[in-house]
Amino acid sequence: MIQVADALKIIAENSCKMPISKIKVSKSLGFVLAEAVYSPINMPPFRQSAMDGYAFTHSGLNQFEVVKTAQAGDFLDEKIEENQAVRIFTGAFVPDDVDTVVMQEYTRITDNLLQIDKMPVAYANVRAKGEQIKKGELVLDANIVITAAAIGYLSSLGITKIKVYEKPKVAILVTGNELVSAGKKLPKGKIYESNSVMLEAALKTIGIKKTAVFKVKDSLKKTKIVIESCLENYDVLLVSGGISVGDYDYVREALLKNSVTELFYKINQKPGKPLFFGRKENKIVFALPGNPASSLTCFYVYALPALKKMMGFEAIHLQEIKRKINTDFSNTSGKTLFLKALYDEEKVTVLESQSSAMLNTFSIANGLIVIPHDIAHVKANEKVVVLPFN
Amino acid sequence: MIQVADALKIIAENSCKMPISKIKVSKSLGFVLAEAVYSPINMPPFRQSAMDGYAFTHSGLNQFEVVKTAQAGDFLDEKIEENQAVRIFTGAFVPDDVDTVVMQEYTRITDNLLQIDKMPVAYANVRAKGEQIKKGELVLDANIVITAAAIGYLSSLGITKIKVYEKPKVAILVTGNELVSAGKKLPKGKIYESNSVMLEAALKTIGIKKTAVFKVKDSLKKTKIVIESCLENYDVLLVSGGISVGDYDYVREALLKNSVTELFYKINQKPGKPLFFGRKENKIVFALPGNPASSLTCFYVYALPALKKMMGFEAIHLQEIKRKINTDFSNTSGKTLFLKALYDEEKVTVLESQSSAMLNTFSIANGLIVIPHDIAHVKANEKVVVLPFN
Repeated sequence: MIQVADALKIIAENSCKMPISKIKVSKSLGFVLAEAVYSPINMPPFRQSAMDGYAFTHSGLNQFEVVKTAQAGDFLDEKIEENQAVRIFTGAFVPDDVDTVVMQEYTRITDNLLQIDKMPVAYANVRAKGEQIKKGELVLDANIVITAAAIGYLSSLGITKIKVYEKPKVAILVTGNELVSAGKKLPKGKIYESNSVMLEAALKTIGIKKTAVFKVKDSLKKTKIVIESCLENYDVLLVSGGISVGDYDYVREALLKNSVTELFYKINQKPGKPLFFGRKENKIVFALPGNPASSLTCFYVYALPALKKMMGFEAIHLQEIKRKINTDFSNTSGKTLFLKALYDEEKVTVLESQSSAMLNTFSIANGLIVIPHDIAHVKANEKVVVLPFN
Repeated sequence: MIQVADALKIIAENSCKMPISKIKVSKSLGFVLAEAVYSPINMPPFRQSAMDGYAFTHSGLNQFEVVKTAQAGDFLDEKIEENQAVRIFTGAFVPDDVDTVVMQEYTRITDNLLQIDKMPVAYANVRAKGEQIKKGELVLDANIVITAAAIGYLSSLGITKIKVYEKPKVAILVTGNELVSAGKKLPKGKIYESNSVMLEAALKTIGIKKTAVFKVKDSLKKTKIVIESCLENYDVLLVSGGISVGDYDYVREALLKNSVTELFYKINQKPGKPLFFGRKENKIVFALPGNPASSLTCFYVYALPALKKMMGFEAIHLQEIKRKINTDFSNTSGKTLFLKALYDEEKVTVLESQSSAMLNTFSIANGLIVIPHDIAHVKANEKVVVLPFN
């Protein structure tokens, strides 16, 4: 049995970054950039008007003949004389012969004759070519997480494909003779299986959609075969159940027979003590407790960081924030406790019903309070560590 | 021109909840529950062992003959005598004749003879039928947002379908003669169009995937036709560009000719001043500024709350938190400013380059600082309002 911090360290050390793929920028939300991106163009690609107004050459004159109109998207390459001006709109190409744009608010126009009432300085309201970014300059550093803004930014520079870390494919293996799929009749002694849909949903929250669910009855032979196939075809295996005292040897045997190296089994924590973590080459295996709330706690605290490490994230663990706890709390267990909680900007409230079997509390929690194994008492209003779910 | 707070109020008042649909629980992540859900079963559905150990009748005896084994999933309905016990595992059905489970750690077993060394109290380690939730009791209240935990919880009670508010279908209409799709050659005077992929990605972050992008050249006739079709087939229309001073009348005319009621145009803010919001029956229209960073700011601050209202969310606006700003800041514009920023638990840093055209800063920001229109100076270390993304 190991402590929480040691388990997290072992997981981080044994989760390997996924291979790199080139994917479409439009499909890259939530992926992590695997290499720095440099701009293929100047932005703006030409001298661009920053205003609706008139473009002219700054020479001392304040009256001009308006000879052309340049809307955004137009390209005017005709000669513009010193006494001539161009009606121009925001974003439009500024013809090569002129250097300044005056806002329309500072002008009067009579027929084609422009009178500038308030003369701007030379070069005013003209964005220089490459003012925002120059061809060859850094657009985005490697290892950033692609957001909607990043997708817009890359696209605005004409970039359509980027290199990212692939997302792991995850197999979920559900064990337990007692389990029946929701929607079916519930025979005596059976309960509904819920961890597979729960884990698939939890995986979706970090953008992992390539998942498959396998279910086996409590048979060593069948379990061994399914695990073998999962390890061949998926990057991560989450086993649900079959890992508590009574039945541990059974799933463990199937894993060991498949050459999975056990990196730890059992963490000094509540809930989720019987967590197994193993590795076979670059594939990793978590055997999660069967109790739904324990399972989800272990998923967020341990499996999520492993998956994020594989996806190329630099910050892999749940964020730690500190909040004032609403109540005195005793921890006589000597274990690290993870308590379902509701936090706001000031405080955090321990929710009722911390049972490891039920998800009622988890459904309304927005984070977990961490009470370390070596802290026996926490007083109301003391600051405790909270792990927000987001 | 109206103030930010008034604009937010008008949007909240004019965004209507979407119709209700029954969908699969397994597909319900991020949807909002439209009606309370009550449990169709008792949970556990039977008296259940909470431990691996032995089940027996608490009568004063401490020696028993072990006659059966009950694994999770088994249903034993044979007679168990007072001097008999059942080997039992966590989660298993506790036979009707017995009432107590002793942990295996407190027993010795010789052949089939069980000796209990530490007698538990009567009824120990047996979860009562319906202990966690009883048939007919409330499972989840209406209006909660479905999380992975909620999906697990509902599934564990055998619930496969729930009523949720539908997600709006969103049309994105991009206008502008200057725009060329990324991946194509960039002719002189043109720039790459990026708002459509950016907005599609931003919509995905709140789970809206039913989107379609339409592009029109600057033609009133064509724009009017496309808007008509968007208003027929989609719930929300986001127009990108064509709404600044120079060209406003043009998109506006096309909207008005389609009987869209203008609810406001122009907000006293920077960036994003020329924001248009309108409504036609239950359909809403935002005409967002064409500048990418302005467009995304307006999306997060205004369109997102409207979409969340439609999806049934109760908390629709970006959360407001307070952080110490890293620098003195002057706001002589008389406008509300939204500044791209990086915040942590203590402070918030105003990022360089607040240009409305570029997304470089937005790509690394994790929130927006709000400087109200009537605040002219903020001192370093003063607390300011931050709107976190997420």
